[in-house]
Amino acid sequence: MKLTELKQAVWEANLRLVREGLVIETWGNASAVDRQQGWVVIKPSGVPYDQMKPEHMVVVRLDTGEPLQSRLRPSSDTPTHLVLYRSFPEIGGVVHTHSLYATAWAQACRPIPCYGTTQADYWFGEVPCTRAMKPSEIQQDYEANTGHVIVETFQGVNPMEHPAVLVAGHGPFTWGRDVHEAVHNAVVLEFVARLASETERLAPRARPIARPLLEKHFLRKHGPNAYYGQKEGHGPARSGSPRS
Amino acid sequence: MKLTELKQAVWEANLRLVREGLVIETWGNASAVDRQQGWVVIKPSGVPYDQMKPEHMVVVRLDTGEPLQSRLRPSSDTPTHLVLYRSFPEIGGVVHTHSLYATAWAQACRPIPCYGTTQADYWFGEVPCTRAMKPSEIQQDYEANTGHVIVETFQGVNPMEHPAVLVAGHGPFTWGRDVHEAVHNAVVLEFVARLASETERLAPRARPIARPLLEKHFLRKHGPNAYYGQKEGHGPARSGSPRS
Amino acid sequence: MKLTELKQAVWEANLRLVREGLVIETWGNASAVDRQQGWVVIKPSGVPYDQMKPEHMVVVRLDTGEPLQSRLRPSSDTPTHLVLYRSFPEIGGVVHTHSLYATAWAQACRPIPCYGTTQADYWFGEVPCTRAMKPSEIQQDYEANTGHVIVETFQGVNPMEHPAVLVAGHGPFTWGRDVHEAVHNAVVLEFVARLASETERLAPRARPIARPLLEKHFLRKHGPNAYYGQKEGHGPARSGSPRS
Amino acid sequence: MKLTELKQAVWEANLRLVREGLVIETWGNASAVDRQQGWVVIKPSGVPYDQMKPEHMVVVRLDTGEPLQSRLRPSSDTPTHLVLYRSFPEIGGVVHTHSLYATAWAQACRPIPCYGTTQADYWFGEVPCTRAMKPSEIQQDYEANTGHVIVETFQGVNPMEHPAVLVAGHGPFTWGRDVHEAVHNAVVLEFVARLASETERLAPRARPIARPLLEKHFLRKHGPNAYYGQKEGHGPARSGSPRS
Repeated sequence: MKLTELKQAVWEANLRLVREGLVIETWGNASAVDRQQGWVVIKPSGVPYDQMKPEHMVVVRLDTGEPLQSRLRPSSDTPTHLVLYRSFPEIGGVVHTHSLYATAWAQACRPIPCYGTTQADYWFGEVPCTRAMKPSEIQQDYEANTGHVIVETFQGVNPMEHPAVLVAGHGPFTWGRDVHEAVHNAVVLEFVARLASETERLAPRARPIARPLLEKHFLRKHGPNAYYGQKEGHGPARSGSPRS
Repeated sequence: MKLTELKQAVWEANLRLVREGLVIETWGNASAVDRQQGWVVIKPSGVPYDQMKPEHMVVVRLDTGEPLQSRLRPSSDTPTHLVLYRSFPEIGGVVHTHSLYATAWAQACRPIPCYGTTQADYWFGEVPCTRAMKPSEIQQDYEANTGHVIVETFQGVNPMEHPAVLVAGHGPFTWGRDVHEAVHNAVVLEFVARLASETERLAPRARPIARPLLEKHFLRKHGPNAYYGQKEGHGPARSGSPRS
Repeated sequence: MKLTELKQAVWEANLRLVREGLVIETWGNASAVDRQQGWVVIKPSGVPYDQMKPEHMVVVRLDTGEPLQSRLRPSSDTPTHLVLYRSFPEIGGVVHTHSLYATAWAQACRPIPCYGTTQADYWFGEVPCTRAMKPSEIQQDYEANTGHVIVETFQGVNPMEHPAVLVAGHGPFTWGRDVHEAVHNAVVLEFVARLASETERLAPRARPIARPLLEKHFLRKHGPNAYYGQKEGHGPARSGSPRS
Repeated sequence: MKLTELKQAVWEANLRLVREGLVIETWGNASAVDRQQGWVVIKPSGVPYDQMKPEHMVVVRLDTGEPLQSRLRPSSDTPTHLVLYRSFPEIGGVVHTHSLYATAWAQACRPIPCYGTTQADYWFGEVPCTRAMKPSEIQQDYEANTGHVIVETFQGVNPMEHPAVLVAGHGPFTWGRDVHEAVHNAVVLEFVARLASETERLAPRARPIARPLLEKHFLRKHGPNAYYGQKEGHGPARSGSPRS
């Protein structure tokens, strides 16, 4: 993909976050990686959405974070995105928001239990939550350390089977094979976060769904024998959603 | 009704689910049956709504589920719809959504108690909830078994007096004499699900309304002496709502 | 006011209920009285809003409820409206809705405590709730008896100082000096109902505001020395809100 | 700034409160001060928004509250605004609303704990709540005394580090360096009020974030070494948000 196309995709993703109601003010950012070139394209910091254009997207090096050819500062969360791209080789896009319900779970410092098939269609179980960060991790290299505490949370967990995390006391990050899928997962995360909250209100001792139901739903969309959606090359063109 | 008209009606019903806010992404489906021809018309699987046209609606046989003249796969929930049509002879349309509040009740594995006249205008008591499905029911013929567990829940219950069900850990199905009434009932279900949740928050020990009030409201709209709405042939044309 | 103007006002009031999100489907009605002529103008029963025109509004006699010059049936709640007009001589308009939060309080069978100045600007204390109706009151003349149980609730209470009631297990009725004020009060009621619910969630033992604050707010808008809003004849034309 | 520009800014701020959903009916007001001239410009009392024009904004003297050249009454909350301008020399704009979630906290008589970084980006800790006002404070000079009880709450607290207050049993006031920043803070306050409420629902014993995280977030936007947003003179023009 050309750089101008990647900038266009990242710009569209950032605007879609606003349209979907996941971002108020300038509190959110989306990025994409080009692993062949070693580039990450990300939203500039603190620029109002109504004036943001594709050419304002900032390009930094994946390995060092150094800016390439840009007068604008990248999002202050850029170091977090870079750690995620370096640690999770299958992801192509990352999104960060302060969307209401996902952030409430993050502030409650709780993973989101998988209470139903809606979540099981996207997460192979719960949405993980990080531990609280230590003072030393906050005072020095805070944004990079945010990435490291996410990676620590995914030891033994496949990020493609759990495409989001809640950073304790902060908010959610989501990802996907490209930046559009990362946005899609941010939309779904906000819905399942709200749904789980409403579920607990009705049944304070609600239990996660049983393993066979979890496997059935996750694997019928994501497993090797997935049978959800149309076969490749059939049906009208599709957008955004994973293998649907 | 001609097949093209039925496809048009099913297409409209699917789009109305989105407009009413009951469906996000592609998580929902509506179908209709032509019992004379032995056909069921249903949404294709995983096709984005903005590209879906009436001719994309898939036709399958009511008795075997075999597709008729279509290149597109039907919704993966088709076997559930078929079981409902075969078991409930009065219904003409079926809708499945993951709408927020109805799904929260389904995830809480709780029927919705009838706390007021709003629900009593449509349900002759509670909205039933299925038992959890067994591993063997999930691993083989999951979608058909979802239909069977619904039918089991309605032993001794008239589906025309309780035009919806919550599938435990999953979400709601609704039905009606035609697909538009099924959509209408899905809209009303989401409202009464939210209303019952807000009621419990204000009165954790709330009690269902007394039998005389339940009978008054259900029967003034649905009984043989219904007096709600205009007499047949009087007043401007009406749409959608049952006998209103 | 001419009858055509009254029909126009009632038609507008009914449509505004929909625009304000207080009515879904056909669940609501607004009416106005002309006490000189002895007429009440009210919405027809079960007619969809998008086809309703001012000339569809139904005229009935205030004393007997008999229809005047109309082919359409009046709202099935008409007998309730008539009892209110006969019992509360200062009111000129009545509104009934199933709006979400007000109906949740009605289903919880609880009056809304006055937790703050927002409510005190409109209600001189709580929003009353009726007792449950007896089986005999439900089985015979249900709609008129709904009015009688409201009137019973207002023994010793000034309906102009508490311009709404919750009918237990059913929903709210509001009123005002004219139908527009009745609609305005329905909008405000829904807001204060939600506000009181959110307040209890944050402080389960919340207490109503103290008497001096209640008096200050209610009387600065409604008392003989009201000083809220512009003096008569000054400022741009005003609409809707009581003496504001 | 010329008076006509200040009137225009105050008019725009009042309309933005409505657009943002913070004000229903006429329950809210925004003002700005010109400290050189000794003028405060504020919304007129009880004028409907759809008829309000910049020239309707009322000018009063900062020192005495006397009106200058206006036929319209200023907002009945004007004395509160004047006390705030006189006591907090750094503020240039003040906003009062009855927005839903902030008002619920005010009715619960609780400060909003700082449960996450979203709040820490704007408040250097909690959002304070006043004590209840005494009967004598309510009966005489109520609106000015509302200002005095706010000022009392900020003894030892920097109003620029806590740009909002909840008046117990009433609702929120916010401020900023100009009226647009005051509106911006009212929008953010409503979001963090809702977010904190949802957090407590998920974790009834939630704890505020640790001091290092609070300092990191507040100071990276507001401290002398702030690094959020673009450097002065770089990037496209920015609006509204503090130093972002």
